[in-house]
Amino acid sequence: MEKLIIIGGGAAGMTAASWARRLKPDLDITVLESTKMVSHAPCGIPYFTEGLFDDESLFMTYTPDYFIEKRKINVKINSIVEEVDLKSRILVVKENQDRIKYEFDNLLLSMGAKPKKINSDGEKIFYVHHPAEATHLRQKLWGFNRIAIIGGGILGIEMAEALRARGKRVIMIHRGKYLLNKMLDEDMGKVVTEKVSSEVELRLSEELVNVEEGGRIVITDKGKYEVDATIVAIGVEPNIDLVKNQLRIGETGAIWTDDHMRTSVKGVYAAGDVAEATNIITKKPDWVPFAPVANKMGFVAGNNIGGKNVIFPGVLGTMITKFEEYIIGKTGLTEVDAKKHGLKTVSATVHHKTRARYYPDSKDIIVKLIAEANSMRIIGAQIIGEEEVLGRLNMLAAVIQKGFTAEDLFFVETGYVPPVNRVWDVVTLAARKLYTGVGGE
Amino acid sequence: MEKLIIIGGGAAGMTAASWARRLKPDLDITVLESTKMVSHAPCGIPYFTEGLFDDESLFMTYTPDYFIEKRKINVKINSIVEEVDLKSRILVVKENQDRIKYEFDNLLLSMGAKPKKINSDGEKIFYVHHPAEATHLRQKLWGFNRIAIIGGGILGIEMAEALRARGKRVIMIHRGKYLLNKMLDEDMGKVVTEKVSSEVELRLSEELVNVEEGGRIVITDKGKYEVDATIVAIGVEPNIDLVKNQLRIGETGAIWTDDHMRTSVKGVYAAGDVAEATNIITKKPDWVPFAPVANKMGFVAGNNIGGKNVIFPGVLGTMITKFEEYIIGKTGLTEVDAKKHGLKTVSATVHHKTRARYYPDSKDIIVKLIAEANSMRIIGAQIIGEEEVLGRLNMLAAVIQKGFTAEDLFFVETGYVPPVNRVWDVVTLAARKLYTGVGGE
Ligand SMILES: Cc1cc2nc3c(=O)[nH]c(=O)nc-3n(C[C@H](O)[C@H](O)[C@H](O)COP(=O)(O)OP(=O)(O)OC[C@H]3O[C@@H](n4cnc5c(N)ncnc54)[C@H](O)[C@@H]3O)c2cc1C
Ligand SMILES: Cc1cc2nc3c(=O)[nH]c(=O)nc-3n(C[C@H](O)[C@H](O)[C@H](O)COP(=O)(O)OP(=O)(O)OC[C@H]3O[C@@H](n4cnc5c(N)ncnc54)[C@H](O)[C@@H]3O)c2cc1C
Repeated sequence: MEKLIIIGGGAAGMTAASWARRLKPDLDITVLESTKMVSHAPCGIPYFTEGLFDDESLFMTYTPDYFIEKRKINVKINSIVEEVDLKSRILVVKENQDRIKYEFDNLLLSMGAKPKKINSDGEKIFYVHHPAEATHLRQKLWGFNRIAIIGGGILGIEMAEALRARGKRVIMIHRGKYLLNKMLDEDMGKVVTEKVSSEVELRLSEELVNVEEGGRIVITDKGKYEVDATIVAIGVEPNIDLVKNQLRIGETGAIWTDDHMRTSVKGVYAAGDVAEATNIITKKPDWVPFAPVANKMGFVAGNNIGGKNVIFPGVLGTMITKFEEYIIGKTGLTEVDAKKHGLKTVSATVHHKTRARYYPDSKDIIVKLIAEANSMRIIGAQIIGEEEVLGRLNMLAAVIQKGFTAEDLFFVETGYVPPVNRVWDVVTLAARKLYTGVGGE
Repeated sequence: MEKLIIIGGGAAGMTAASWARRLKPDLDITVLESTKMVSHAPCGIPYFTEGLFDDESLFMTYTPDYFIEKRKINVKINSIVEEVDLKSRILVVKENQDRIKYEFDNLLLSMGAKPKKINSDGEKIFYVHHPAEATHLRQKLWGFNRIAIIGGGILGIEMAEALRARGKRVIMIHRGKYLLNKMLDEDMGKVVTEKVSSEVELRLSEELVNVEEGGRIVITDKGKYEVDATIVAIGVEPNIDLVKNQLRIGETGAIWTDDHMRTSVKGVYAAGDVAEATNIITKKPDWVPFAPVANKMGFVAGNNIGGKNVIFPGVLGTMITKFEEYIIGKTGLTEVDAKKHGLKTVSATVHHKTRARYYPDSKDIIVKLIAEANSMRIIGAQIIGEEEVLGRLNMLAAVIQKGFTAEDLFFVETGYVPPVNRVWDVVTLAARKLYTGVGGE
């Protein structure tokens, strides 16, 4: 029987397994997962830490048993793949005390990403990574009062929100001039920075030197901070150690894939946070380690393994996060990204409201649009708002994915009703500002 | 000096005036408006009736004085155009007791729409139409206890919400089998119907015969209802009496226009609820009397009058309304519409949640997508949900406007963060169901 092995039972792995199963009822599918969880979502860890829910099993969309019984997928939890030989097509897997060999016809690499580490180690240095560790992490964190977070990216600010909600004092050390500086341009990032700084002791433009005493002393190029514990959230990297010398690694450091999620080795696929893709705007390699991309890559890999020709269109870099009442989203390129790629841009930013002037509880929303200077094609968008950010962000992702110009976007026939927006929607106004050069309502 | 006259100072008229002014600083622009309000939004009347705000001036985005002083637009309120002669290019206008003649080089017709009337008249029969009448209307309505609403369309249900919030008893008489039957297909309309029926005494599939005793007795083909007053909300029609024998009227009954908002008479433009346009999907004439369309038509007319070549891309029929916690949107064609136009369709409906499983206060949301059977091009969408409906609706309007297939829509790189959606967004799932035939998460 034809054998598919999948390393990693996260979003990408389980989606691929499910689609391969649907299309090839006879395929022998084994998923090897080092933890006790599959089809999990680490995205919930900050909210679990905040105490918004207590049932760890909610991290999983489906349980291992569900996959085994309902989908006839041989899910092996607590099974760590220790060695991979892509030539002889053999894996060595640690299951309990045993080391077991597996053979495969097709292999899917979906080991995800892992946190970038600092040099020091210690009992009070924490990384936020896998839901299987969430209960342990939260028990520990709840016992501290003053906590340092190294890194002011998405994970950093989500953990800061969670810890503030638990009444902790948070000091955040960030190398950039403003928070979320890989996601937002400075003008938008400053809005977030100001908000976060009202809750958190912020140290910007400060470089970490060392963490000492097992996590209790943080030393930077500008100061020394005594805390109870340190969370390191300085970014992630693809989890490729198992295979990195056996296949092509892309420019971004993740596994190179084609638009079918095939790697450079025949019969070996990669999907999710381990995999690189092509940016739809720049046509250059890009790495977008977020859950919707992982799921869709898994869908593409599973379909192709299942014999159906499905093409992954590439990535935009859509991301969204939340800090207290601010929901913050970005899709496509920032102005900083665009400059790096030698693209000339124009941008328009509109501060607006989410409801009619007279309708109660109207909230603030800011939309920044970035267009390529000559074609006026929309290539990036950033939003900060208190409601209705998600749909607008997804709208702009669609707009960028299909190459709308500012004029096209202005003319999209948006809906209007006073309780949920303004008659000139903030997105329409931003598009109009780009298209005509004129602001205002 | 070149003279532009605009009849009607609503959304379309004032937008056109502003853009013509920007582009032609020397143009002599006069707006003739029969009421005391300009750049107003009748859309707020239900919320004013509900008592959510009391300041009538909030109906206006800008005041007449603002336009006169800041934009050098000669706004004449309380000026009713009584006669129009498109051949001799002369208008007769009633201003106070006087009848004044105006000449023009260019004319914009933007008289909006008016409520369809029933045969009976009376002190206790009300139409909901112009914000200039909102204070009077609300004073009256607040004095009644049991009120009949004839018509279960958007305006009917918005008024029902307002009156229920004021503690009134509402009986709604609707000719259709379900509410919003011009906006939604039966499956979606029934969801709204059930909701409304928990607040309102609903009489469906009932035909109005007469309203007697000045509004106090409603007689239908199935019954007779005693009430304190009757609101008639059976639809609107374009306000074209002034000119209907002097230019081409389109198939829909509104003024025919080309894609520059020019009518069949040279130098005469039409925009907003008086004007017909071309449906982007069917390429047939269509009439979409909603504010965002009126504004954009006004933009196009104003730019073209101002000498800038701007093309109106046509209409989709996007609409959105609210009943209590339900926000209800539609864009493109319903299945019923599609059938009328001889299009074969497939559809997919997904019931989902607006937040992660474990995140508090997750709400229900239902998305129905309609695609053309062979091309799998998305041609319609209907949404009912308790939050984040607007952005998704606008996303789908963009998607339909540019001819995305179900596959294209599935692959849009949506964002995900647990407090605002699911990792497989409801729109992505609905697209996937169309594209693959497979439901579930
Ligand atoms: C704290 C946190 C919050 C996040 N929040 C968001 C968010 O809000 N929105 C969003 O879009 N994305 C978010 N992400 C990113 C998102 O979780 C990832 O993009 C997504 O999980 C990637 O899916 P994947 O299947 O590629 O990898 P993963 O979900 O990481 O799954 C990989 C699996 O492989 C297993 N594995 C690794 N090596 C081996 C081995 N040798 N043997 C066996 N098994 C192995 C791991 O145990 C793991 O279960 C967040 C990530 C983290 C860590
Ligand atoms: C109660 C109500 C609620 C609504 N809610 C919504 C909603 O939530 N969302 C939405 O998108 N749309 C809504 N609409 C529709 C929306 O208001 C219209 O599409 C929009 O106002 C059309 O703009 P317009 O400029 O074409 O016409 P109007 O705004 O109607 O303006 C036309 C103007 O012309 C003037 N006029 C007419 N005849 C003459 C004359 N002979 N001489 C001088 N002046 C004249 C009128 O007094 C009026 O001020 C609603 C409409 C109503 C009535």
